[in-house]
Amino acid sequence: MAKELVDVQNRKANHPITIDHVGIKGIKYPIQVFDKKRGFQHTVAEVAMFVDLPSHYKGTHMSRFIEILSTVDGEISVKMLLKILRRMKEQLNAETSKIEFHFPYFIEKIAPVSHSKAYVDYDCTLTATLKKHFSYILKVIVPVHTLCPCSKELCNVSAHNQRSYVSVTIEARSVIWIEDIVDIVEQNASSPIYSYLKRTDEKYITEYAYNHPMFVEDIVRAISAEFEKMNDLNYFNIEAENMESIHNHNAYASIERRMKD
Amino acid sequence: MAKELVDVQNRKANHPITIDHVGIKGIKYPIQVFDKKRGFQHTVAEVAMFVDLPSHYKGTHMSRFIEILSTVDGEISVKMLLKILRRMKEQLNAETSKIEFHFPYFIEKIAPVSHSKAYVDYDCTLTATLKKHFSYILKVIVPVHTLCPCSKELCNVSAHNQRSYVSVTIEARSVIWIEDIVDIVEQNASSPIYSYLKRTDEKYITEYAYNHPMFVEDIVRAISAEFEKMNDLNYFNIEAENMESIHNHNAYASIERRMKD
Amino acid sequence: MAKELVDVQNRKANHPITIDHVGIKGIKYPIQVFDKKRGFQHTVAEVAMFVDLPSHYKGTHMSRFIEILSTVDGEISVKMLLKILRRMKEQLNAETSKIEFHFPYFIEKIAPVSHSKAYVDYDCTLTATLKKHFSYILKVIVPVHTLCPCSKELCNVSAHNQRSYVSVTIEARSVIWIEDIVDIVEQNASSPIYSYLKRTDEKYITEYAYNHPMFVEDIVRAISAEFEKMNDLNYFNIEAENMESIHNHNAYASIERRMKD
Amino acid sequence: MAKELVDVQNRKANHPITIDHVGIKGIKYPIQVFDKKRGFQHTVAEVAMFVDLPSHYKGTHMSRFIEILSTVDGEISVKMLLKILRRMKEQLNAETSKIEFHFPYFIEKIAPVSHSKAYVDYDCTLTATLKKHFSYILKVIVPVHTLCPCSKELCNVSAHNQRSYVSVTIEARSVIWIEDIVDIVEQNASSPIYSYLKRTDEKYITEYAYNHPMFVEDIVRAISAEFEKMNDLNYFNIEAENMESIHNHNAYASIERRMKD
Repeated sequence: MAKELVDVQNRKANHPITIDHVGIKGIKYPIQVFDKKRGFQHTVAEVAMFVDLPSHYKGTHMSRFIEILSTVDGEISVKMLLKILRRMKEQLNAETSKIEFHFPYFIEKIAPVSHSKAYVDYDCTLTATLKKHFSYILKVIVPVHTLCPCSKELCNVSAHNQRSYVSVTIEARSVIWIEDIVDIVEQNASSPIYSYLKRTDEKYITEYAYNHPMFVEDIVRAISAEFEKMNDLNYFNIEAENMESIHNHNAYASIERRMKD
Repeated sequence: MAKELVDVQNRKANHPITIDHVGIKGIKYPIQVFDKKRGFQHTVAEVAMFVDLPSHYKGTHMSRFIEILSTVDGEISVKMLLKILRRMKEQLNAETSKIEFHFPYFIEKIAPVSHSKAYVDYDCTLTATLKKHFSYILKVIVPVHTLCPCSKELCNVSAHNQRSYVSVTIEARSVIWIEDIVDIVEQNASSPIYSYLKRTDEKYITEYAYNHPMFVEDIVRAISAEFEKMNDLNYFNIEAENMESIHNHNAYASIERRMKD
Repeated sequence: MAKELVDVQNRKANHPITIDHVGIKGIKYPIQVFDKKRGFQHTVAEVAMFVDLPSHYKGTHMSRFIEILSTVDGEISVKMLLKILRRMKEQLNAETSKIEFHFPYFIEKIAPVSHSKAYVDYDCTLTATLKKHFSYILKVIVPVHTLCPCSKELCNVSAHNQRSYVSVTIEARSVIWIEDIVDIVEQNASSPIYSYLKRTDEKYITEYAYNHPMFVEDIVRAISAEFEKMNDLNYFNIEAENMESIHNHNAYASIERRMKD
Repeated sequence: MAKELVDVQNRKANHPITIDHVGIKGIKYPIQVFDKKRGFQHTVAEVAMFVDLPSHYKGTHMSRFIEILSTVDGEISVKMLLKILRRMKEQLNAETSKIEFHFPYFIEKIAPVSHSKAYVDYDCTLTATLKKHFSYILKVIVPVHTLCPCSKELCNVSAHNQRSYVSVTIEARSVIWIEDIVDIVEQNASSPIYSYLKRTDEKYITEYAYNHPMFVEDIVRAISAEFEKMNDLNYFNIEAENMESIHNHNAYASIERRMKD
């Protein structure tokens, strides 16, 4: 005879300790993200969802995370995030709910001379939390071109240069567009990078970068100076990592600031 | 004074050797893939594009790959693949053109008892080639549940089980749906897996799997037997990899068959 | 005529902002790590090295990190870490120096019944910092076997089980052995896992796990309870992630505590 | 009462199909590899081991792979490989046995001007097979520096350059040293790369690379020309992949040749 479908999770815990995060990780889902220019764009996210768990419950109900995720139909806006986070708190009896989306975001870049157009992808992570108040952390990784100032001065010709990844992580009190973060980073590197470049563009970028040599140190300082001017930031962390073209390892620098808790 | 924009790639090669593949790798692009149920689905692909290069040319024109990719607007169908591959051959003076899309494909799975619905992602790679004729290779990785037959017989209760990944790679002369490959794999594992399961489903799956224990060897043989019956296949490779739950390493089996060149 | 070999890094910065971390990442190096049983073991680490940079220097001297790393000859002990960190502070004029080693650590595990022996690898990260005082953070990821308590109660036979990864991150005021962390974790999972198991062991483990069902919640609580008893800890973070065998996503729980700054 | 420890694997298969590969994947093990200069070097490998399985056996005995691996004590030489492969064939009743080691290999590189020394890691995969005869495939990935010939000609100053990875895969009838493969690759790139470089070296490399611009096409052709001269090769595949510094994607070329089966 079949057993009764007992609810083990509702039982008492052996060790009555509050759990900070309990939930699911590593589920892929199709989503639509706000796009400054096009309204929405389709992409794919790896999603994580967590709540806290009071000390007296043995376990959370894992299937409810998926239930909530599957009903929102993949539209990611501030309004929708709030709806998801509220449902998580309600249906899982939690004081804190958290959801994380890790996704590529596509921006159509226009080459500097030929004006050729093609998408470049930016690796983004959006983490939204609802405790008493709503807050979010956005991380954007921007690929750029860097040319070494030291190499330029040492050499009679040329200078070593490379692809670099600049990561910007912010906690803000208002909506900040991914496009605006990308712009700030690109203006503070040796050059932006592109998917589609013709010969005229390649000439322009190479020469432009030679005239704008930057260390990882220069990049994180210049970008920090921009973010320090912003009013609505609680926190930022700026990281630059050069895939050094003369080494098999990377050069790295980071600046982290908390303005407000 | 500015230099003339010379075309270095058109020069003679120092070593006049034919190159099998020359092109681009690792570009991410938003695409739309044929969906058996919904017509099309939006997803994101990592793309590679190659042509061959005759021995007398120094180099290919890398920017033309992106130019072609950016104009097709991301719709991936057999018709569109043919169009892309033909343009690659024409614009790059090649005898062979090849394009590869690596993307997650989403299928809404329905839980066996509660009929709850949510997406599961399947890791797919589609490689299409145009030489004299068009051909394509499709690889689909299907996550499944496996329960060890040996453990079941040894133990008085239970049996170790785990998540497994079954990879099916086929070269076919007609269109084969991703959905149909997933179905064949799932019918030949201890159980399909799902994103959204309620308690009734969990009970059903666990007991079903206990009644359908399978080794990696059993899985690749059973699936091979299915693919051997198909008419339009030139080639298949079936791989099963169990993330063994009692080990920190995996169990693996594979069967590869070429029916026709 | 050749240029003078100028020292660009010693120049003034355009943006006089203090940089938290500047250094190198992603270099692989052969190392020897303290082994509780065998004295030392040979392994391979991915290394990162950072210092802080005062606001008035334009850049750090990246080559000095490698110079220091290459002279220590790969022996990683507390004594050697202190030596490296002191040299980093001196040679790079820094107030804080930090070094990180990410490496597999091998423990010969003995099967519970047959006593068969083979290595299991544990993913470890050791981060040592010298500011005024020396401190270190150690993260160890321990693969274990977990069996679902809910599934056990629901089902007439069997229960879904899987490989899980438990991560323990500690900041301690004395040396804590990797072996001891592994022991604590393994005693608080459904079962340890092994590389080399005979049929008698497989039977033992499967039945043992069936009698010790645990949620991710149970695991992080039970392990936290152990670490809370320790005297020399400043901080711990316990994470458990189940590679759920009936899903293509993972179940996760974490508990983080700071006892002392 | 305890069940008898049945040997399920020895039973008859439901689908009597020969399996090409059955075995284990993803186990990490400490090994010692032949080193041209130092005799042996310690490193860490991810190991895979396979045999074929005749159609009439239900399954292989997975634990025997680990048993064999754990008794050889990690020394990887041709003599030892033969011993392992013979034992695999014997103990698993197979016609073909195969073992694969994927490991970082360290070479102490000497900077071109300052003669500073430090290790660079090379990603290697050694696959050895025993059927009637012994054969092996070695893949070595060599990081190099490349400077774009097109960019050099277009620009009044500088040229974009980047880190590149050249992969050499060979099947040989005699022992070929990893060191010799690395040498051939480095002599056919814009410049070798190093871990430890002083300012004099950086100047030398940057200027040397500017005088040796190379496309991915040039690299694979020049290296192929070298390997075509070798007597003891059955097969080679040369691949070059540039992490393009002005793009977020890579340029790629490959040449594959089979001289003898």
